[in-house]
Amino acid sequence: MPPSPIAIVAGVGPGTGAAVARRFAKAYPIALLARSPANYESLVSEINGSGGKAIGISTDVSSEESVKAAFDRIKKEYAGAGCAAAVFNASGPFSRKPLLEMGVEEFGKSWEVSCKGALIFSQAALPLLLQSTHTASTPSPHPPTLIFTGATASIKANAQMSSFAAGKFALRALSTSIAKEFGPQGVHVAHAVIDGVIDIPRTKEWLKDMPAEAKIGAEDIAESYWNLHTQSVRCFTNEIDIRPMLEKW
Amino acid sequence: MPPSPIAIVAGVGPGTGAAVARRFAKAYPIALLARSPANYESLVSEINGSGGKAIGISTDVSSEESVKAAFDRIKKEYAGAGCAAAVFNASGPFSRKPLLEMGVEEFGKSWEVSCKGALIFSQAALPLLLQSTHTASTPSPHPPTLIFTGATASIKANAQMSSFAAGKFALRALSTSIAKEFGPQGVHVAHAVIDGVIDIPRTKEWLKDMPAEAKIGAEDIAESYWNLHTQSVRCFTNEIDIRPMLEKW
Amino acid sequence: MPPSPIAIVAGVGPGTGAAVARRFAKAYPIALLARSPANYESLVSEINGSGGKAIGISTDVSSEESVKAAFDRIKKEYAGAGCAAAVFNASGPFSRKPLLEMGVEEFGKSWEVSCKGALIFSQAALPLLLQSTHTASTPSPHPPTLIFTGATASIKANAQMSSFAAGKFALRALSTSIAKEFGPQGVHVAHAVIDGVIDIPRTKEWLKDMPAEAKIGAEDIAESYWNLHTQSVRCFTNEIDIRPMLEKW
Amino acid sequence: MPPSPIAIVAGVGPGTGAAVARRFAKAYPIALLARSPANYESLVSEINGSGGKAIGISTDVSSEESVKAAFDRIKKEYAGAGCAAAVFNASGPFSRKPLLEMGVEEFGKSWEVSCKGALIFSQAALPLLLQSTHTASTPSPHPPTLIFTGATASIKANAQMSSFAAGKFALRALSTSIAKEFGPQGVHVAHAVIDGVIDIPRTKEWLKDMPAEAKIGAEDIAESYWNLHTQSVRCFTNEIDIRPMLEKW
Repeated sequence: MPPSPIAIVAGVGPGTGAAVARRFAKAYPIALLARSPANYESLVSEINGSGGKAIGISTDVSSEESVKAAFDRIKKEYAGAGCAAAVFNASGPFSRKPLLEMGVEEFGKSWEVSCKGALIFSQAALPLLLQSTHTASTPSPHPPTLIFTGATASIKANAQMSSFAAGKFALRALSTSIAKEFGPQGVHVAHAVIDGVIDIPRTKEWLKDMPAEAKIGAEDIAESYWNLHTQSVRCFTNEIDIRPMLEKW
Repeated sequence: MPPSPIAIVAGVGPGTGAAVARRFAKAYPIALLARSPANYESLVSEINGSGGKAIGISTDVSSEESVKAAFDRIKKEYAGAGCAAAVFNASGPFSRKPLLEMGVEEFGKSWEVSCKGALIFSQAALPLLLQSTHTASTPSPHPPTLIFTGATASIKANAQMSSFAAGKFALRALSTSIAKEFGPQGVHVAHAVIDGVIDIPRTKEWLKDMPAEAKIGAEDIAESYWNLHTQSVRCFTNEIDIRPMLEKW
Repeated sequence: MPPSPIAIVAGVGPGTGAAVARRFAKAYPIALLARSPANYESLVSEINGSGGKAIGISTDVSSEESVKAAFDRIKKEYAGAGCAAAVFNASGPFSRKPLLEMGVEEFGKSWEVSCKGALIFSQAALPLLLQSTHTASTPSPHPPTLIFTGATASIKANAQMSSFAAGKFALRALSTSIAKEFGPQGVHVAHAVIDGVIDIPRTKEWLKDMPAEAKIGAEDIAESYWNLHTQSVRCFTNEIDIRPMLEKW
Repeated sequence: MPPSPIAIVAGVGPGTGAAVARRFAKAYPIALLARSPANYESLVSEINGSGGKAIGISTDVSSEESVKAAFDRIKKEYAGAGCAAAVFNASGPFSRKPLLEMGVEEFGKSWEVSCKGALIFSQAALPLLLQSTHTASTPSPHPPTLIFTGATASIKANAQMSSFAAGKFALRALSTSIAKEFGPQGVHVAHAVIDGVIDIPRTKEWLKDMPAEAKIGAEDIAESYWNLHTQSVRCFTNEIDIRPMLEKW
């Protein structure tokens, strides 16, 4: 019997990445990629302790070598497994800064992670995703899915947000191009424009006088990603927006 | 005990509308609106015969009087019920025609249904939707949801498609405006850009030499609409696109 | 010698329309269409008194009969002339209103003028525009140009702006569809997204504490329209946005 | 008397850059930046020989040092001059390639020039542009203008075009962010979506069976850029599209 297909999440922190990991771990063995082990260690324990199967791998998604090493580890741990779902949730730094004060290298950091990292991750994940399309020998229960997490800045480039927006616009282009190339091969590629503040420890003080509906629930994003994953080959959504009920837009 | 909230589908034919009706009828008593009884009669029987509850009402969505009569009937049949989900799936005629051959009245037909009809339907449905928000006395299990079915022409206006595109662009504007006004009141408004040929009896001969993945499954659209409906107040998607795996875009 | 090609401006008031008329009247005999003679009478005198040639015609652009009568008059006054430039600057009413307080007829007023009016005007003007393409017997000095005036609401549908936005979104669809059909025939079709307050008598009290750069100059829009008109067949711009220096966007 | 403001064009080759340089050299002393002197030498001679004033500087726009050296040279040659217009016309390589065959470094080349280069150039040019706003001591005759040349891929990311599209999407984000930050300071920032084949020596064999109207004229783009430059502070266009009459879009 072929091994179960797996899920891979890059960019696991205390927010969306962890929630997505928990959701997909209900269905698939999972690999969690994050720069620092602190970001995945307790989550790996939690998943393994509650009937799931998870490994965590310290990875710098903007480095080819690092991602290659991570996928080597994945292929060893989950030998022969195709990939049912790969989620790229890493983001470059979010810096608000006047253009003339922006360092060139600093400017590029967002692109390095959001776009170059997404490319490196996609190139590593796509062969595994292709391995579990519905025409492949070990099909995933749902069309294999590659999801990219975008932001308001994916479609709106505000003043002083040039670095973040440039990286996120570029990621959106990459996502669409991959969707058009690999969709016809059976891989479902989707881009999510997360338009609002996600309710995570880091944003605890933001909008604190507002009701809970002013922030996006990380676990709700995860559920939406899962729903994207379960769409059939006759119904691919390539882009969704997500915002909380009280968001002004 | 307050009555169960209901679902209402306008524009029920043999394709998306019927599939959406079947899907939402699994969870809610349902009202089906279509111009001709032939479009809903067998479906009403099918739903009522399989443990659901449905009524069909012959309605011209572009007529205020007709929609008012339909909602009077709904309020009588489902007395006291709020609305959990309202889906506007009606479309004006799809006419491909050189601009100089287009009759002015003919040009307006698409707008009459796609946009004016959507307004009339929304004005009738919104009070019932507001009646079942999570702060209302008889909340729906999920945030009450108003979904509009769009098309490729909602975002792309090709030559000779002026009438259809004008109506669908206008509907998209209406949907966004309603989303921004009623989202903060707890109603989830979503617009779906259906970008491809839906696999229904009428399109049987289209793309017939292509595999099944060249067309959109109506039941898959219905499942996506259901997934929109189940999103929480901390995660509203206001627009999705939908296309089959093999679509060129 | 064939008669000089003419310009036609629909929607002449004290702002953009008048400024566009003045600008194009420097180059072409002109016909001004407005609902009320009060809107064009002094302008017609001004143009005729300063070396130009103008006629004004009382027209309801949302009425086929009225537009037909206007063009009959134009063809009589300017017998045999092709059209070098036609500018549709009419707008339906701008009403900000909660959706549930919006009358259905009232809702449609914006579409009636902005979109249906634009169709009627285009169908009347296009034969005259085609008559002066660079392959026609009486070519215009520049490719014949059809320009539509849009607004912020052409691309952004805010809460309580459903009527205006629906009409303007629909106009944008119409403009694009006409551009794609008639561009290859040599007619340059352009849509202008006017994103800001135009400095006209009616808006005198708006933004009055702000510098002049907070509003759009009507005569500057006119100059931009003229520049669109002078683009060659090897360089058609089909959409521009226009805003004042101080606009937030 | 303060020195005349100057124009600066980066990315001067045999096509758009040269045409833009010729056009702006009619009004301003000019500096031409290109990687190879072969790209500007004859043009510099031509301009200097026909009553204009030009210098050429060999520059790698993706290198901070190189751009800094170029601007040092400009400030020396044109001491005290503000900048009336700066045009960024450089592009990263246009490579059509399956995603899995794309080298990571190769992928980044487009971004390096199109976006990082645009940032470096903008940071060097903006202080000179600010120096000639209409409130500055040595105002330019028109609002100082910063123009970026985009492409179809700025708004459309096709299969196998990921690298080029990612770079151009990112540039568009950068352009908008700069426009929003510096517009209110009096600098007019515009982005041009060049949607079609430009008629230059390199594309001579393309579309050769089609009429001249199937390609974009480089000199026509230049004229459109000039027209953008002449817009007033009460009428900034921040984005235009440009295509030839016969383009399918």
